[in-house]
Amino acid sequence: MRLSQMLFVTLREEPAEAEIPSHKLLVRAGYIRRIGSGIYAYLPLMWRVLQKISQIVREEMNATGAQECLLPQLQPSDLWRESGRWDTYTKAEGIMFALTDRQERELGLGPTHEEVITTIAKEMIRSYRQLPLNLYQIQTKFRDEIRPRFGLMRGREFIMKDAYSFSADEESLRAIYQDMDRAYCKIFRRCGLAFRAVEADSGAIGGSASQEFMVLADAGEDEVLYTEDGKYSANVEKAISLPPEVEPSPFKKYEKLETPGTETIEKLAKFLKCSTTAVVKNVLYEALYDNGTLVLALVHIRGDQDVNEVKLQNELVRLAPRYQAKTLLALRVPDESAQQKWAAKPLPLGYIAPDLPDDYISSVKDVISEFLRLADKTVVDLKNFVTGANEFGYHVVGANWGKEFQLPELMVDIRKARPGDRAIHDPSQILQSTRGIEVGHIFQLGTKYSQAMGATYTNEQGEELPLVMGCYGIGVSRLAQAAVEQSYDKDGIIWPVAIAPYHAIVVIPNINDREQVEVAEKLYNELNLAGIETLLDDRDERAGVKFKDADLIGIPYRIVTGRAIKQGKVELVERANKQSQEIAIEEVVTNLRARIDEALKL
Amino acid sequence: MRLSQMLFVTLREEPAEAEIPSHKLLVRAGYIRRIGSGIYAYLPLMWRVLQKISQIVREEMNATGAQECLLPQLQPSDLWRESGRWDTYTKAEGIMFALTDRQERELGLGPTHEEVITTIAKEMIRSYRQLPLNLYQIQTKFRDEIRPRFGLMRGREFIMKDAYSFSADEESLRAIYQDMDRAYCKIFRRCGLAFRAVEADSGAIGGSASQEFMVLADAGEDEVLYTEDGKYSANVEKAISLPPEVEPSPFKKYEKLETPGTETIEKLAKFLKCSTTAVVKNVLYEALYDNGTLVLALVHIRGDQDVNEVKLQNELVRLAPRYQAKTLLALRVPDESAQQKWAAKPLPLGYIAPDLPDDYISSVKDVISEFLRLADKTVVDLKNFVTGANEFGYHVVGANWGKEFQLPELMVDIRKARPGDRAIHDPSQILQSTRGIEVGHIFQLGTKYSQAMGATYTNEQGEELPLVMGCYGIGVSRLAQAAVEQSYDKDGIIWPVAIAPYHAIVVIPNINDREQVEVAEKLYNELNLAGIETLLDDRDERAGVKFKDADLIGIPYRIVTGRAIKQGKVELVERANKQSQEIAIEEVVTNLRARIDEALKL
Repeated sequence: MRLSQMLFVTLREEPAEAEIPSHKLLVRAGYIRRIGSGIYAYLPLMWRVLQKISQIVREEMNATGAQECLLPQLQPSDLWRESGRWDTYTKAEGIMFALTDRQERELGLGPTHEEVITTIAKEMIRSYRQLPLNLYQIQTKFRDEIRPRFGLMRGREFIMKDAYSFSADEESLRAIYQDMDRAYCKIFRRCGLAFRAVEADSGAIGGSASQEFMVLADAGEDEVLYTEDGKYSANVEKAISLPPEVEPSPFKKYEKLETPGTETIEKLAKFLKCSTTAVVKNVLYEALYDNGTLVLALVHIRGDQDVNEVKLQNELVRLAPRYQAKTLLALRVPDESAQQKWAAKPLPLGYIAPDLPDDYISSVKDVISEFLRLADKTVVDLKNFVTGANEFGYHVVGANWGKEFQLPELMVDIRKARPGDRAIHDPSQILQSTRGIEVGHIFQLGTKYSQAMGATYTNEQGEELPLVMGCYGIGVSRLAQAAVEQSYDKDGIIWPVAIAPYHAIVVIPNINDREQVEVAEKLYNELNLAGIETLLDDRDERAGVKFKDADLIGIPYRIVTGRAIKQGKVELVERANKQSQEIAIEEVVTNLRARIDEALKL
Repeated sequence: MRLSQMLFVTLREEPAEAEIPSHKLLVRAGYIRRIGSGIYAYLPLMWRVLQKISQIVREEMNATGAQECLLPQLQPSDLWRESGRWDTYTKAEGIMFALTDRQERELGLGPTHEEVITTIAKEMIRSYRQLPLNLYQIQTKFRDEIRPRFGLMRGREFIMKDAYSFSADEESLRAIYQDMDRAYCKIFRRCGLAFRAVEADSGAIGGSASQEFMVLADAGEDEVLYTEDGKYSANVEKAISLPPEVEPSPFKKYEKLETPGTETIEKLAKFLKCSTTAVVKNVLYEALYDNGTLVLALVHIRGDQDVNEVKLQNELVRLAPRYQAKTLLALRVPDESAQQKWAAKPLPLGYIAPDLPDDYISSVKDVISEFLRLADKTVVDLKNFVTGANEFGYHVVGANWGKEFQLPELMVDIRKARPGDRAIHDPSQILQSTRGIEVGHIFQLGTKYSQAMGATYTNEQGEELPLVMGCYGIGVSRLAQAAVEQSYDKDGIIWPVAIAPYHAIVVIPNINDREQVEVAEKLYNELNLAGIETLLDDRDERAGVKFKDADLIGIPYRIVTGRAIKQGKVELVERANKQSQEIAIEEVVTNLRARIDEALKL
């Protein structure tokens, strides 16, 4: 392609809308253009990058025997009601765009396709002989994000590869899950990315196990905890660890003490001259279920630790059947004004005890449907601990479970793991922290959707059983931007060769020099004929402008038909390291071919 | 791909939802599956067909220098308000799905992309030196059809290729338009279709000239009129012709006659013993503009002719500025009950005169904003004609323009051309009729959108001018089904080789026969290695079932490893003509390669 004939416009100024380097660069270099909040047009250069990534994804998916299809983006609400997710997706999380058609029927714009594919499986799969199956698509998805940002990273319209597998049993599911794990690693390696597979929370998708693939980058929205021995890495949402050792409590006797101005654990520990590990912190949560049940949950956790709200939310979702509810709509820490909605006298935040006072409970019975206590495992073995007294300005010390307070029935891990914690698999390993951009996520769904929607098969013994499912996503457009976030310099983008929009760019420093033009045209044709995708900068611009643009758009190899053509040579510059060398004109094609082949070797 | 590992389910029964053969066959053969009204999943076989068509489209578009991109499907309503189409698309025609996001901002789901691309052009194009440009995308589009039907033919979610060109002047636009015309012909030929390019109405897209590409098929929703000399063909919505000759009126004297029971022209002509060509028919229309203006339009047309409402609508849209309106929201013939909404005494339908009575006009002034008369050209030269008397049971005869009635200022062509009419380019040519499926449409838009949205460029003289635009669409998913509608037999689909999901299918009649299996596996591998896309029917099914399925799904070449393998031969059956021959196993690859190459030759 000739730049003179392309929609090619680069910007000198940084776009006001962009916060992170990759977003700024993609806009400045003319790859994307904002059309609305979280909505972008992919211009010709970007589209080539996206096609290349898609092709790599396709090849590796096909190699595992997965079959490509395309499912509708418009999804009838009925299907989502069958799975029980309509309310969660359109109301609770509100991330699915919903609309009504001219017949007043509700439709959602697909953020994911479990419901559609399970419906198809239900209709088409009868027998174990049709299993296993893995179907995938590469498609634009929609999410009505609360805060669209970072360009393609968190857009409202984005390209995903999503795959769904159907198996007769868990063993087959695990085999496909492992195939997908391997295929994903290959895909990200082929795309030239530094990445890490991490344990992950399954979120609204559900299922038992799940794993995310993180492209490592400082601008990543996710925190990853890992150990140096390479044996553990997890999203902080999911991560587990050994908490720091407990320092014994200095209090031997149970008593109530006046502790003025100790609303925070740090102030309290300082005031009492004890370790924060000797304190039981009681955190009040308000949980609203989809059937209107309002639960007040009191969480006990060791004073030096924090609640992992993702883990807490998962526990509360798991409890939904106890309240005849399907899903959790909202979870929050009620501040005093929120508490005043149901109690004339709010609980003294910072001084709450492991038990709520009976008069408080009876006074709010009209509003609060249920009370719940959950103990994080860190508090279970504490002795002689310090905790709140349900009275402003007072704590109790020297308390013990089974004596002054009862341990609740629910003892769970809802603690946030932190860098510096010891690893569970090997306490000599200390958790490190890094930031990542999630570009892939694989899930063992099990029978969550097939049971809800009645998608079954008949096994060899003639029994009807629910299909065992997995699902596997890659954020194609996000991956493209993540590649830039991982690879740029002050002059612009540095594309990995495998996903660069073009391999090479031939720059004519002066288009009025006939010899320069002739050599460039000849090379441009020869390179393209040899399958080396090449741009020709034949614009009537100064050489400096052309070099700056070539650096900005990040084409791996630049060939300049400058003064050296008198000696039968051109300049070849490698974008990644700016190394330049003169090579004979007749060697350009073989030289570049060799470099590209080397770069594409895994 | 092995059928045993594919999502492959064929149905014996015809699906209740399907009306036309291609729809039935695509469902029965497992290509598509209905998810909702007008919403289909493309299963793996279908997806391959769609990818092949897309690839042909891409190659031919790229060959013209067009650049592929991808524009968002979610489109901010602001852009559509700028072009003035938001109301037409979401209210008047109501074919655009609209939704509001969590910030209560309105968005439309793109049925077409003039607004988005013009916004991009406005921001990126500055100078004539950047022109011309032609950008295209292959993408899922949405239309909230009043009556979704015929499977992919009129779906609510479908795949389109849409291209938009930007030129400095009309001459450049015409050159690109011609390039597109040629590229489209090549695309449809390569896809193996019998098609016809026809003159077309530009509809809600707008612009001056437009041309449709019709795949000829009885089930087509469009009527095409054409001449045998090949020099004229047009969609009936757009078609022009010479009307039949006039038979002179037998009435010499102007008088009012009692004509009881002559509400139709045929009854009237019979009663008066005159030709229907001697009658001026006056048809009342009610036109509602977007600013609330209600216009009563009285159309005069020769008795033997009918009003072409598409042409009439275009005239009324053209008149919108006269009523300070932007667009027409609705057009209909008001029946008596509709008339009673504004007039105590409705006009006597069937007896309306070319002039409305003054007392009628003054009595409805409160409701009707404007009155309008339009004469179709067929009435202009009529002498001594017969027409209504504005009185039930009465007509006048021997009337003349300029005497008893005045010709209106608007004299236009709003007549429906018919098969049997004489062609304008050569009156010896008679219009013939055929039916077609519209698979492509190209438009010379001119400056409609660039002016409305302020998309300009600066010419060599430094003047700022609006960009001159064209747009060019192909219905990719509709084309796939049209191919089936044009090519099937009682046993199933007969795919053209170029767009068949696979070129060949190797059928093992008996999977318990080791020799059959071995030969089949060998051929399956060799064919795929040779680039001949091949299925292997290795299912544990009877041979008859396999042959039926192979016919149903319509793979061009079937290879059967049956009894003849004892003689070193296999059976090769051509799907299109059912011709079968035995060929040596070692010749299969070269034989098929030759057949496929021959089939793909243009």
